[in-house]
Amino acid sequence: MSDPPSLPEILYDDVVRRALAEDLGRAGDLTTDAIVPASLEARAALVARESGRIAGLEAALHAFRLLDPSVRVEVRLGDGCDAPADATVARVEGRARSILTAARTALYVLGRQSGIATAARDMVARLEGLQTRVVGTRKTTPGLRVLEKYALRVGGAGSHRYGLDDAVLVKDNHVALAGGVGEAVRRARDGAGHLVKLEVEVDTLEQLDQALGAGVDAVLLDNMDLETLREAVRRCRGRALTEASGGIRADNVRAVAATGVDLVSIGWLTHSAPALDVALDVEG
Amino acid sequence: MSDPPSLPEILYDDVVRRALAEDLGRAGDLTTDAIVPASLEARAALVARESGRIAGLEAALHAFRLLDPSVRVEVRLGDGCDAPADATVARVEGRARSILTAARTALYVLGRQSGIATAARDMVARLEGLQTRVVGTRKTTPGLRVLEKYALRVGGAGSHRYGLDDAVLVKDNHVALAGGVGEAVRRARDGAGHLVKLEVEVDTLEQLDQALGAGVDAVLLDNMDLETLREAVRRCRGRALTEASGGIRADNVRAVAATGVDLVSIGWLTHSAPALDVALDVEG
Amino acid sequence: MSDPPSLPEILYDDVVRRALAEDLGRAGDLTTDAIVPASLEARAALVARESGRIAGLEAALHAFRLLDPSVRVEVRLGDGCDAPADATVARVEGRARSILTAARTALYVLGRQSGIATAARDMVARLEGLQTRVVGTRKTTPGLRVLEKYALRVGGAGSHRYGLDDAVLVKDNHVALAGGVGEAVRRARDGAGHLVKLEVEVDTLEQLDQALGAGVDAVLLDNMDLETLREAVRRCRGRALTEASGGIRADNVRAVAATGVDLVSIGWLTHSAPALDVALDVEG
Amino acid sequence: MSDPPSLPEILYDDVVRRALAEDLGRAGDLTTDAIVPASLEARAALVARESGRIAGLEAALHAFRLLDPSVRVEVRLGDGCDAPADATVARVEGRARSILTAARTALYVLGRQSGIATAARDMVARLEGLQTRVVGTRKTTPGLRVLEKYALRVGGAGSHRYGLDDAVLVKDNHVALAGGVGEAVRRARDGAGHLVKLEVEVDTLEQLDQALGAGVDAVLLDNMDLETLREAVRRCRGRALTEASGGIRADNVRAVAATGVDLVSIGWLTHSAPALDVALDVEG
Amino acid sequence: MSDPPSLPEILYDDVVRRALAEDLGRAGDLTTDAIVPASLEARAALVARESGRIAGLEAALHAFRLLDPSVRVEVRLGDGCDAPADATVARVEGRARSILTAARTALYVLGRQSGIATAARDMVARLEGLQTRVVGTRKTTPGLRVLEKYALRVGGAGSHRYGLDDAVLVKDNHVALAGGVGEAVRRARDGAGHLVKLEVEVDTLEQLDQALGAGVDAVLLDNMDLETLREAVRRCRGRALTEASGGIRADNVRAVAATGVDLVSIGWLTHSAPALDVALDVEG
Amino acid sequence: MSDPPSLPEILYDDVVRRALAEDLGRAGDLTTDAIVPASLEARAALVARESGRIAGLEAALHAFRLLDPSVRVEVRLGDGCDAPADATVARVEGRARSILTAARTALYVLGRQSGIATAARDMVARLEGLQTRVVGTRKTTPGLRVLEKYALRVGGAGSHRYGLDDAVLVKDNHVALAGGVGEAVRRARDGAGHLVKLEVEVDTLEQLDQALGAGVDAVLLDNMDLETLREAVRRCRGRALTEASGGIRADNVRAVAATGVDLVSIGWLTHSAPALDVALDVEG
Repeated sequence: MSDPPSLPEILYDDVVRRALAEDLGRAGDLTTDAIVPASLEARAALVARESGRIAGLEAALHAFRLLDPSVRVEVRLGDGCDAPADATVARVEGRARSILTAARTALYVLGRQSGIATAARDMVARLEGLQTRVVGTRKTTPGLRVLEKYALRVGGAGSHRYGLDDAVLVKDNHVALAGGVGEAVRRARDGAGHLVKLEVEVDTLEQLDQALGAGVDAVLLDNMDLETLREAVRRCRGRALTEASGGIRADNVRAVAATGVDLVSIGWLTHSAPALDVALDVEG
Repeated sequence: MSDPPSLPEILYDDVVRRALAEDLGRAGDLTTDAIVPASLEARAALVARESGRIAGLEAALHAFRLLDPSVRVEVRLGDGCDAPADATVARVEGRARSILTAARTALYVLGRQSGIATAARDMVARLEGLQTRVVGTRKTTPGLRVLEKYALRVGGAGSHRYGLDDAVLVKDNHVALAGGVGEAVRRARDGAGHLVKLEVEVDTLEQLDQALGAGVDAVLLDNMDLETLREAVRRCRGRALTEASGGIRADNVRAVAATGVDLVSIGWLTHSAPALDVALDVEG
Repeated sequence: MSDPPSLPEILYDDVVRRALAEDLGRAGDLTTDAIVPASLEARAALVARESGRIAGLEAALHAFRLLDPSVRVEVRLGDGCDAPADATVARVEGRARSILTAARTALYVLGRQSGIATAARDMVARLEGLQTRVVGTRKTTPGLRVLEKYALRVGGAGSHRYGLDDAVLVKDNHVALAGGVGEAVRRARDGAGHLVKLEVEVDTLEQLDQALGAGVDAVLLDNMDLETLREAVRRCRGRALTEASGGIRADNVRAVAATGVDLVSIGWLTHSAPALDVALDVEG
Repeated sequence: MSDPPSLPEILYDDVVRRALAEDLGRAGDLTTDAIVPASLEARAALVARESGRIAGLEAALHAFRLLDPSVRVEVRLGDGCDAPADATVARVEGRARSILTAARTALYVLGRQSGIATAARDMVARLEGLQTRVVGTRKTTPGLRVLEKYALRVGGAGSHRYGLDDAVLVKDNHVALAGGVGEAVRRARDGAGHLVKLEVEVDTLEQLDQALGAGVDAVLLDNMDLETLREAVRRCRGRALTEASGGIRADNVRAVAATGVDLVSIGWLTHSAPALDVALDVEG
Repeated sequence: MSDPPSLPEILYDDVVRRALAEDLGRAGDLTTDAIVPASLEARAALVARESGRIAGLEAALHAFRLLDPSVRVEVRLGDGCDAPADATVARVEGRARSILTAARTALYVLGRQSGIATAARDMVARLEGLQTRVVGTRKTTPGLRVLEKYALRVGGAGSHRYGLDDAVLVKDNHVALAGGVGEAVRRARDGAGHLVKLEVEVDTLEQLDQALGAGVDAVLLDNMDLETLREAVRRCRGRALTEASGGIRADNVRAVAATGVDLVSIGWLTHSAPALDVALDVEG
Repeated sequence: MSDPPSLPEILYDDVVRRALAEDLGRAGDLTTDAIVPASLEARAALVARESGRIAGLEAALHAFRLLDPSVRVEVRLGDGCDAPADATVARVEGRARSILTAARTALYVLGRQSGIATAARDMVARLEGLQTRVVGTRKTTPGLRVLEKYALRVGGAGSHRYGLDDAVLVKDNHVALAGGVGEAVRRARDGAGHLVKLEVEVDTLEQLDQALGAGVDAVLLDNMDLETLREAVRRCRGRALTEASGGIRADNVRAVAATGVDLVSIGWLTHSAPALDVALDVEG
């Protein structure tokens, strides 16, 4: 993948700063300060212990620079690169104390974002040749949404919504309080303006017909079996985008996509993808 | 479990505030504002869909109160309680808009902390009758360390270190830069003061002997097989606390503990325990 | 207008807090502290000196509550109400010192948001009977975007974009760097995903044809005369939403809308609408 | 004008950071990221489309540097310079993405502060040959007071008060609560200390006499006609500074000043001066 | 003393919050949580162990309320009261855990501000019958200036300057860089405007004459002996306010004041006044 | 002393930033801006007017860099060095305005931390030849704990606790609420985990015996006379660390230590040590 989106420092500075601060506490790294002389210089490699797609490398390196602006960093495999196992993705060089003290924060950030990007990439790869796109959900870690949504994009997936404010998604609770899908959609159409897409979550074909009758841009087909999905896609053709959600993982994603849905929505990518195994090797 | 530790609002206010803010974005909940009248009141239950130990309930309810101070909350099963499946852990009542809009943030906080507490509780239960204690590690989510460490304690587990500043833990990189376990321990002993415990990570019995020779309060026995662990415990008796780490999960924790180690350290509890499945049911 | 959107305190707390803090400085209100006894109670009315649509009243009252939680407030004409001249929109009661000291901050917030809402309402009223909708732009005051966009909605107008991240708008600089409208649109379509609307700014009918040929959801027709606008609307029919911008004010908005454009975009509403004249009358 | 006051970055960093953050949202600049390659470099000029006095240029350029520290900037006409129409005031060079994404924030800051400085300069110029000085008021934009007061000074105007805490200004509400001008002044004199100037707002010559009788450093002559102003100045000579306020604009400022008042106070300079028209021209 | 100045919570909330947060760390009060049951209620008195003037009581009580909004507080001797030894200044009642955990923060705030107010009061009392006023300096604790300046006012003293921005004080370094007292004063007079008072620090009578010749509002007579002070006061009569500074303490303040200076400036009041001895007595 | 602990900028940035901001206020340094030309360069020395141990130099220099990143600094005697009287500890060079404006903040930080480090060093020196170590307490300035604890370490002293969360210290109020020393210790032992040291404050030998009987790691011997201390040390030998506290100053510290206590705890070091006299000499 070439040319990933930009993630300016201003969008992740706070989260790295907080992570570092909660690790340093009130006295800093007691162990390193006691053992490593202040003047000792070191060089270390950030290494991917397993293959995967790199994401969040600049944010990870920011941990070293925040702790000590004199640390030099060199990027070898930047965001969007596919690193083979044991590849060095970056080098850091400077005061040994600074390198050891910032390591845990840097590794967490890099491992977690790369884990998400790798999972997204692998999911996208399973749909090769199909038109269906993979998107994430709002189920992100508090405080880390910007980073995790970015990692999805680096992995080639899109995003359902960034927050409650950038699209209308009518869910069961809304339908219940409005007294029906039709009324809920009508109110949403009136209230939300012409430039925002309107999507409704439906569990059954009856609800789907009501939604289509009320006029929607997209439908979220929640937890339907493959046959129902196929029928839903048929009914929506030319009328609304279709998005499948609920229990979609690596082993069934292609079957779901093969029903013809436009999008598959996978919360697992952000809330449960395993971190990529990354390590810091001090080179002396 | 009775009388869990206190977690004052001042320690979690920021994280809930940030989570809510990143969900509200710049325009708030478009869907709910369009569909639900401003004056409509509702009542809803926070329900545990599966059994587990509750943790973080006050922080979860804080999301509703931050969004709308007029929402009333009623705790049914507070932190430290073991909720059966489908139990109502709390009720919220007030403006329907406020309840729907804060729901995702509240559910995330409750589900994640309860997931950690439940995993910790289950791990502790597997050691019944043994002296070994379960502890977590520093592998927590950036910005959430306070909440996740608290959830560990609610689950009956302890904590290895809260940060780099509250104990000395000599790791392989420190040993490498100091030129040996003995020298590293000597420097740590000199630099860190009388009131701080000194622990060293060792991979082999040779390293263990060097550490014991240099004088340490505790040893972290990393990735040792059961037989080596048993021998290590034997050599440490009366000389140092023993802590096992590396690949410890539910299916092997009792075997590890049966070697006689004082502590088992399990990073999985905070970085990968599955969230407890919780939901918000609007009751009309 | 009934049922305006919700604006939770969490979205405006910071801006009111900062406004108050910069007025209080390091010593608070020297004049009031010197002249008004600490124990003196007072009652005051927030009065609209001229008729207009009220917006930001809760944010304005927040200034009193932030300064002194014991101040009682009573809303008479809330957000979305059309206040006649000299109408009392709210009453505040409590320590006289607190009321005087917070007054300037409260009045600024109320006057500015109500000014925007009133201007938006008046612009919308001029289009009665037409399908064209009024929208604002990103030209908002730094730090106040949430409040100003909210005021637009209270006035019945919509919003073009909340920020750079919630829609794609291809402008002249993008076209220049991409080497043409067609190429710019193609890249935008590939990079931005299925759920985001794509709009292109065009100055001429030639550019419009290129944009339509490349496939866009909407076109921003910038600074076109009425005849060109009519022709542009004709070419877009059934192919793209049309949005007129550039120099649209009260005296020409109906003529522009009568060309058949779907939207008129008016930056003036947020960056230059005059504040509504509001005052605080102490009632003793 | 040479040697304007210093405005250290620490005094405007927050406001620029917030402005940028609210524009970037959670995903950054979707359009630019989709269209402009990450590696493309560009050069652009910040151009004054009309003539005016430059103010806030460093704060504007800070937007580019905050977004991307590798952007190079070159100041051509710094704060305090009078730029002719179409003059280039600064150049920026670096990643094209960074330049486009920060542009709106930078232009807003520069246009607004330069607009205030220009309006202040023009007002000052109208008083050439007179002793009267122009000052601004506390009617500034929430969160921007430091910048707007600075722009006034760059324009050659002074400042009435920076906040409630740096001078005593007795207004009608204070007089009402104290039961008269004399009593209000007496209390203010007792409470506020020797080093703070004491000014009283008066609407009539009777109130003026009471104020002078009670002993004040300055009087704010609010909304008086020219004749009354002249008489007020006569009565104050040698006893108190005189400051005229209320409805003073470009077309009447010299007549007001010619009455002999020491100061004219003009809220319009900060709350309604039109922004200077500035633009970013990408030079390829 | 009756009717001290107001100190709104918004001006001290941050400092109390930070103090509490740095004491709670990441795990809260381990000792109290382990020993005191969560449901135990207690009542405690804040007691002045020695006599003194109370200041900062609301800020101190804020520590309890920040930690636990359910704690009830009752003020007995508020800011500005003179408490005899062993007097109860306030009572707090609620969860025993909350009371113990917030105690240190509350006591620090109360003890320190009351210490400053008491020292100021005592200094003021020593000047009874004289016209000279006591003022503090800018030598305050970083982050605590607002509180410490407020404590001075509660003690009956005034304030020299709140910061670098609210008056002009020309010091030796300014004189050196300007090339003389006269030139420094001339520049200051031109640059700083009509509403700001201009004071110059002088060490000798020669410098004093230069300052008076250049025209100043006040002179800071630094480290002069009593005879020189008397002569300086004589030369300044009717021309400038006189302020003595340098080494003024309780035992010489009356002699200094008796020279006729208008103000004595005492940095010791904020940077070194001993804290008032206050304690928290749990009443069961 | 060589190799002091590291104090990363991230741990003191906030406090220096706040100190500078409260000094700059809303308009910056009026005096310097009026007198010193913007383009004038200067060089200045930070000089220790009396001998002492330097601490906090980087934090002090941070004030200059925060205000103006173009100021160059040169460290001559860094943290941990013992400066003779009149020694230059650092040089700063750059815009004269920046150097004068940041001076007060820098001097405060350097003087206060060096004062603490010097007092600690002197106290440690008095115990030469003894095994007793000097430690500080939690009685630090709100917001400055990190800096002040660091200064203690630079002075060769240790720290009792950094906060309520990093050790268990059972005090009189805990004992009272638990109903006795034994019960308090039992609960603390159960609740606080194996890795945390448990210390109990005792006033009498009876309490000491109860504490030892209950099993503790350390005892805080509060306000005991020398004879009682000696007896307490005798009883604790091999059973618990001993720490003396209460009224320990320079003139009695060696006598206290000679009783054989392991630690002497001295709150005076942080709350009342006199600042080191440091000054900024402009060199032209």
